[in-house]
Amino acid sequence: MLLVVLELAGLAVFAASGALAAVRAQLDAFGVVVLGLTTALGGGVIRDVLLGVHPPASLRNLPYLVVPVVAALIVFAFHPQVARLRRAVLLADAVGLGLFTVSGTATALAMDVPAYTACLIGMTAGIGGGALRDLLLREIPLVLRREIYALAALAGAVVVVVGHRLAWPAGLVAVVGSVLVVLIRVVTLWRQWHAPVARGVER
Amino acid sequence: MLLVVLELAGLAVFAASGALAAVRAQLDAFGVVVLGLTTALGGGVIRDVLLGVHPPASLRNLPYLVVPVVAALIVFAFHPQVARLRRAVLLADAVGLGLFTVSGTATALAMDVPAYTACLIGMTAGIGGGALRDLLLREIPLVLRREIYALAALAGAVVVVVGHRLAWPAGLVAVVGSVLVVLIRVVTLWRQWHAPVARGVER
Amino acid sequence: MLLVVLELAGLAVFAASGALAAVRAQLDAFGVVVLGLTTALGGGVIRDVLLGVHPPASLRNLPYLVVPVVAALIVFAFHPQVARLRRAVLLADAVGLGLFTVSGTATALAMDVPAYTACLIGMTAGIGGGALRDLLLREIPLVLRREIYALAALAGAVVVVVGHRLAWPAGLVAVVGSVLVVLIRVVTLWRQWHAPVARGVER
Repeated sequence: MLLVVLELAGLAVFAASGALAAVRAQLDAFGVVVLGLTTALGGGVIRDVLLGVHPPASLRNLPYLVVPVVAALIVFAFHPQVARLRRAVLLADAVGLGLFTVSGTATALAMDVPAYTACLIGMTAGIGGGALRDLLLREIPLVLRREIYALAALAGAVVVVVGHRLAWPAGLVAVVGSVLVVLIRVVTLWRQWHAPVARGVER
Repeated sequence: MLLVVLELAGLAVFAASGALAAVRAQLDAFGVVVLGLTTALGGGVIRDVLLGVHPPASLRNLPYLVVPVVAALIVFAFHPQVARLRRAVLLADAVGLGLFTVSGTATALAMDVPAYTACLIGMTAGIGGGALRDLLLREIPLVLRREIYALAALAGAVVVVVGHRLAWPAGLVAVVGSVLVVLIRVVTLWRQWHAPVARGVER
Repeated sequence: MLLVVLELAGLAVFAASGALAAVRAQLDAFGVVVLGLTTALGGGVIRDVLLGVHPPASLRNLPYLVVPVVAALIVFAFHPQVARLRRAVLLADAVGLGLFTVSGTATALAMDVPAYTACLIGMTAGIGGGALRDLLLREIPLVLRREIYALAALAGAVVVVVGHRLAWPAGLVAVVGSVLVVLIRVVTLWRQWHAPVARGVER
């Protein structure tokens, strides 16, 4: 139950991040909704396609559609206020990343794939929606630019795998994994930590 | 039979739209064929991947490959004439959008998915090929820019779902749904109707 | 055994091409690894999604993950030397294209799909990783720009299909197909052969 609420919250914040990016790119109302939906559902759809779940779960549950659409419409209607909440959106994006990475890894583990496969699929689920959003708006995806993005997802996925091996309660694992992802993202954004860039690139 | 002819026509016009865009981007002959094929087959491949049809139907039927290749080559050879037919291409694109949305929705319904899932998958089938074309050419997909594009697809998908519930003949449903999509696209292009854009965006 | 070694070599060279492109785009260390992995695994993942192999084989074999990561890290650490080896990288890219096209076609044929379906899936497997790499970096994919790229892949795929029909030994078919792809790429790059571009494009 807690997990469902958290997942719907993740959908809402990912949809909001997509819709806000669409408003900035001056798309119309439908484009805003389409991009919000794509950002929110993209990661889960990729996860289910990789795992062979047909049709993807996020296309089969009505609340999974309604929540992102409503979130996108709210952004469209109130975007100046939302844009001012830029920090809140970054936080929400981090929450979404954590939740989808954790639930993606857990879903994969439940289908008896090897641990590293589950980590990869969980990271893909967490990162996929935002990558689609950036691709559609012709931007280099944040996962490739923003430091410690993929690493944060990897940390969350590893927590789920280790917790699963140690037979921790699933709810505890989900909370610890998600919180770790959010913490890593928040701290690195706050401290402006960067991973090293290769030196002396002659373009 | 009518449906097969219409679907092949849809493949041809989508391939032509991809090939024309490729000619404009100054791709070579092979690039034109590759982009034409991708535009024509993309929507159906995405639909079948979501529904778990392996390998996708559009990769298993020889006419589904021959028709787009021939259409792309014709565009490559005669492109100035085709380019002058810009309105015909826009009309054809609308026909393709209608046909693939309708056939995608009907295919999904036949696999016993919920109605809204069928609508989503049908819209994806109709929109997918053109979105791939624009992504590969580094353009923001038309579905995000051109007003009433996604809405037209949604209208066609809803007609199929309602007709299916009311047990209308499948052929009638397909025709009504496709015609409605084409009508919406033609009227909005002709009247230059736009959906609202968010006001006061500070970029 | 030879095939496994060749496939791992293909993964390494594709990962190196992705990592080198990422270094040039000034991504950080994680971005370099993510793009290297995506380039190396992309084609195989797309192939398995189209064929319904869940989860994709390249996500289930640890060496398939370790080799690209190591290759990407080596590029990140030693990129000036690697960049100077530009010809070697182009050769390696051709080898990867050949190997993945051949193994993709053979994998598809083993699942009893029609010959042209196997060719299409094999070409997609060979081309897919590089196309993803270019998409993520916002470039028009090489397959659409570089002449004789898709054709080289097609030639390799046809060799595999013909060899399969004639019941040649699988190893021989793989070698002949891969070598043919590499030869076509090398000769066309060396002689700077181009496919025709449509004349008189008014943009």
